[in-house]
Amino acid sequence: MTLDKKYVLGKDVKILIVGLGMIGGSYASCLTKQGYDVSAITRSAETIEYALSRGIIARGAASPDPSLISSADLIIIALYPHTVAEWIGENQKYFKSGAVVTDVTGVKGSVVGAVQKILRDDCEFIAAHPMAGREKSGIKYSDDTIFRVANYIIVPTDKNTEEAIEICRALGETLGFARISVLSPDEHDEMIAFLSQLTHCIAVSLMCSSDDPTISRYTGDSFRDLTRIAKINDEMWSELFIANKEKLLFEMDNFLENFKALRDALEREDRDKMREMMRTSTERREAFDKK
Amino acid sequence: MTLDKKYVLGKDVKILIVGLGMIGGSYASCLTKQGYDVSAITRSAETIEYALSRGIIARGAASPDPSLISSADLIIIALYPHTVAEWIGENQKYFKSGAVVTDVTGVKGSVVGAVQKILRDDCEFIAAHPMAGREKSGIKYSDDTIFRVANYIIVPTDKNTEEAIEICRALGETLGFARISVLSPDEHDEMIAFLSQLTHCIAVSLMCSSDDPTISRYTGDSFRDLTRIAKINDEMWSELFIANKEKLLFEMDNFLENFKALRDALEREDRDKMREMMRTSTERREAFDKK
Repeated sequence: MTLDKKYVLGKDVKILIVGLGMIGGSYASCLTKQGYDVSAITRSAETIEYALSRGIIARGAASPDPSLISSADLIIIALYPHTVAEWIGENQKYFKSGAVVTDVTGVKGSVVGAVQKILRDDCEFIAAHPMAGREKSGIKYSDDTIFRVANYIIVPTDKNTEEAIEICRALGETLGFARISVLSPDEHDEMIAFLSQLTHCIAVSLMCSSDDPTISRYTGDSFRDLTRIAKINDEMWSELFIANKEKLLFEMDNFLENFKALRDALEREDRDKMREMMRTSTERREAFDKK
Repeated sequence: MTLDKKYVLGKDVKILIVGLGMIGGSYASCLTKQGYDVSAITRSAETIEYALSRGIIARGAASPDPSLISSADLIIIALYPHTVAEWIGENQKYFKSGAVVTDVTGVKGSVVGAVQKILRDDCEFIAAHPMAGREKSGIKYSDDTIFRVANYIIVPTDKNTEEAIEICRALGETLGFARISVLSPDEHDEMIAFLSQLTHCIAVSLMCSSDDPTISRYTGDSFRDLTRIAKINDEMWSELFIANKEKLLFEMDNFLENFKALRDALEREDRDKMREMMRTSTERREAFDKK
């Protein structure tokens, strides 16, 4: 694969995307538009047909086709976390020597180690997390414009080469992400537990707290904004939560403690404590506006 | 005051606004623009000067001026909840006979009863809650465009006449609110505890749960949306929370129970329970999109 001095992905790179869901489909669409040769493997023949008919991919298969796999320089696994290592274990016998493999999963600790342990020595796995999502799943909802406001996190370990990290960065740049960062698997999973998983837990719990449909009549922006992410792919997110269980439980308990502190301050009408928490939150939230 | 058959506020209605904060200032600005005669009383002489110099009010005073009060047909009290009854008690001796008094406070149970109990028999208090707000307070942040996407809730009791309710509705229409509803004080306070106060408690507690400023680098839309309301006027909101203590504690405990159910399901890796909650939240949240 060509990687010039500025670490731009050469147009001769042959890309294989495994799993054409919303994210895999958005990757495919974006990379094809930019002139790359993009193939895909996904379980549903209907999805392959859809992607071929719309020119999202150049070729595809509904099963792990050895010739598609063996011609790829860059393999992007866009499957659910628990199937990433499994798919690689079963199909790495077809990998081209020197192939670089990356992923899109939202948790890393449980994925990266497992994959790097089993992967052939002549290939390299470099993990990445595109922090982009939509409320809907499936290739029909793919949309590569979501990357333009999103973060792309590269998650290397000490098993990764500088070159693979730069290839991964070049992929993130090609996809047009707004910001590209590098974090260790542990740092990534801590950050994601607090910023993403905890907020989804809150939104889900809040929507489960009232079964009165008439309240939507009085709903303002604050409630709508807070619960937008309560529309959630239950299959994927329950898996992500369990895959990051320890860190998410820590953040949930930490939030519970703060919420209870506010609740107890209200019960005893401790206005000073309530105001102190409100001033802390106001001050901290300001920092998030400046970015 | 003139109220024609379609219940439009006649332009001869003399309006007095007590308290020129963000909301009082926005009312004044909007009503003046529409040609009404608007006076104001607020504690700060500087605020009166500001409002006069910008043509937001026709006249004003930094103390309860008897001639301003006695010439008003419609008095809008835009003070903090605990001072509404106090201000009326001290100044109702100046009220014109037949004057209609309304308010803008975000809790009603503790305000409406207290005011209606002390008010002179020849005047009428009809409560209202403009569900509009901004993160900033003070007349400099007044902005009457915020009403156009907001709810206006009229909160009558059995002490109110049909005419006063219609005057209040006409005021809401004049101000340009998107939706106008009628709720009892109890219904209002229950709705506001869940939709507004609980969401602010969640946002404040969440911001208090991390003091790591580097996380803002990775923050996506979901966290930003969820914590927008964590920037909060601590003086006003702590008062609103305490004024609605019983109902807010009920909603906080109800949310805690649901959040803990999700937390415990995660701890025991009960995927079915987690997915059930996620499906419930997804389904309920859909209803909020349709409006």
